[in-house]
Amino acid sequence: MTQPRSVAVIVGSLRQDSVSRKLAHALEKLTPNLAFSEVEIGGLQLFNQDLEATPTAEWVTFRAKIAAADAVLFVTPEYNRSVPGALKNAIDVGSRPYGASVWNGKPGAVVSVSPGGVGGFGANHHLRQSLVFLNVPVLSSEAYVGNAFSLFNEAGELANEGTAAFLTTYGKAFSAWIETILAGNAAA
Amino acid sequence: MTQPRSVAVIVGSLRQDSVSRKLAHALEKLTPNLAFSEVEIGGLQLFNQDLEATPTAEWVTFRAKIAAADAVLFVTPEYNRSVPGALKNAIDVGSRPYGASVWNGKPGAVVSVSPGGVGGFGANHHLRQSLVFLNVPVLSSEAYVGNAFSLFNEAGELANEGTAAFLTTYGKAFSAWIETILAGNAAA
Amino acid sequence: MTQPRSVAVIVGSLRQDSVSRKLAHALEKLTPNLAFSEVEIGGLQLFNQDLEATPTAEWVTFRAKIAAADAVLFVTPEYNRSVPGALKNAIDVGSRPYGASVWNGKPGAVVSVSPGGVGGFGANHHLRQSLVFLNVPVLSSEAYVGNAFSLFNEAGELANEGTAAFLTTYGKAFSAWIETILAGNAAA
Amino acid sequence: MTQPRSVAVIVGSLRQDSVSRKLAHALEKLTPNLAFSEVEIGGLQLFNQDLEATPTAEWVTFRAKIAAADAVLFVTPEYNRSVPGALKNAIDVGSRPYGASVWNGKPGAVVSVSPGGVGGFGANHHLRQSLVFLNVPVLSSEAYVGNAFSLFNEAGELANEGTAAFLTTYGKAFSAWIETILAGNAAA
Repeated sequence: MTQPRSVAVIVGSLRQDSVSRKLAHALEKLTPNLAFSEVEIGGLQLFNQDLEATPTAEWVTFRAKIAAADAVLFVTPEYNRSVPGALKNAIDVGSRPYGASVWNGKPGAVVSVSPGGVGGFGANHHLRQSLVFLNVPVLSSEAYVGNAFSLFNEAGELANEGTAAFLTTYGKAFSAWIETILAGNAAA
Repeated sequence: MTQPRSVAVIVGSLRQDSVSRKLAHALEKLTPNLAFSEVEIGGLQLFNQDLEATPTAEWVTFRAKIAAADAVLFVTPEYNRSVPGALKNAIDVGSRPYGASVWNGKPGAVVSVSPGGVGGFGANHHLRQSLVFLNVPVLSSEAYVGNAFSLFNEAGELANEGTAAFLTTYGKAFSAWIETILAGNAAA
Repeated sequence: MTQPRSVAVIVGSLRQDSVSRKLAHALEKLTPNLAFSEVEIGGLQLFNQDLEATPTAEWVTFRAKIAAADAVLFVTPEYNRSVPGALKNAIDVGSRPYGASVWNGKPGAVVSVSPGGVGGFGANHHLRQSLVFLNVPVLSSEAYVGNAFSLFNEAGELANEGTAAFLTTYGKAFSAWIETILAGNAAA
Repeated sequence: MTQPRSVAVIVGSLRQDSVSRKLAHALEKLTPNLAFSEVEIGGLQLFNQDLEATPTAEWVTFRAKIAAADAVLFVTPEYNRSVPGALKNAIDVGSRPYGASVWNGKPGAVVSVSPGGVGGFGANHHLRQSLVFLNVPVLSSEAYVGNAFSLFNEAGELANEGTAAFLTTYGKAFSAWIETILAGNAAA
């Protein structure tokens, strides 16, 4: 029996009760063929090039976890029409030192979440721009999850059939994308 | 002997003597395993939804040429920090009617060109944002060709070794990307 | 009695029955202190630098109309996560020849419109990026008009109180912005 | 004698020897009519909504310093085609709690800096997108400072005449912009 592909999940919000995290869990449940595992970003020190030679333990651990994963999934709210600073900092930490980025070549997917209708469009595409540079081939399928607070019940479980159907399709597309990109990487 | 992959080339500038076109030709020469063929966009009428039921002959021809290609390459200048209107119009024409976009699923690449140092960054990423929506998986490798007028000799041929080396690598990466994406499409 | 400020209105869609145009009309009615006047973009030939020395009559007329206005308002749908090609072409036509852009220094505002929930976010911010380059100081207030088809009655008139209230506030903010920027221009 | 306008300066890099900071100092020297004062961002904890009711001392101090300034200037490198996480975090901290953003209405300017030719275009425009939302009217004039390491002498002082001339003009434009926006705010 083959091992399921491992997916490092980055949740953009640091709130305990984050709706982005709930959404990541819902996607996980609906995509049983992938092994999701959240990598925490809230404990990462702000990136500072002066510390590159003496990286903090948190940076080292974070980089190792991303490096070990087959793929990366970002589920994030939008802060001020872009990604949260904490998420961008995690991106920066993983990208350094120069030439040793742990993001390089990993298949990725981006889901943005918002309480209102716009669905985090600004965060979604800012993140994609960074991922182009980092050579993370991102699934084209767009996932803008609007009105997010209304989608979950009191137990924090997804309680919206339309969203469940969407996430099921999305998880399949992501799974296929992972295979496509990893096959390409293997052929290179 | 296998057929080479066909690449529809969209040049963003309508100038006769366009440096974007020269660059496309240079890339073509340096990538002999792909069959490039420019698809003209200067004769396309502005997209107007009222004409969808009675598309112009130019629209029909354009759509057919893109549909027939294995992949798409965009080589474009930047106009006012974005893509030229003519290029965006071609994107729009190819994307309609709803559900019949000719762009869907084709592997793509984006090269931006500028006379100054910035290399068309704004055009490059605006185009990428549209291509996400159109499900054109775009090669991550970034190609910002700055100081473009200085790169060609009077015969219009590339006369810069650094750029030639860059384009050779880029052409190989694009070729591999085409195979990766087409293999994924075939497996779906 | 002072003359009302004149506002050149650019509607991004070429459809006869465009919901963007309806919205522009609604804003006009709710902002009686400004004199709106639509400047057509559907008849503009695609910009081509080879024609700069011999501009078409349509280009000349378009440039003159923009140049004569005190301010500019863009009301646009989103096509493929960016502005319609026709709108971008109008931007390009007005920006040339180099050094003679008719956009320079005019106060501006951007309203984006969509049938779904996202409200044309992608078009809105791509347009803003171009307007930075063109030195059009744009009103910060964001206007994303989602679910746009549901807002108008059969006579094409705005029939949504929330949107009417929003547009009333928006028109006042735009009016104040025009005065702020024109005062700054006069002081320079 | 009138007080000079105060400008809160945010430097995007946390490096001791940051070239962004050197550039900010150079602009300060060349703009003697404004009172620049850097507000540190390296000690700010990552924004977390769970801590809003009990803000850290660093957040409180940061917010107070921004609130006290007449205007804001951002000088930033580009990390992974966007702003550094530390800078985005500072933006987020200053923007909260909802309704109490310290950015609101302040005139702003954005300078991006890079070791290569592109000049931080990606960081510059991502930051501008956030500032639209935050109602920070940003000076249109673009400042992309490329090849930045070559511009300073060993004492860290600007040693490039072209850049000095550019910054002199830029400082005057920013000064005029501050007066324009503050006059508009006063009239509201």
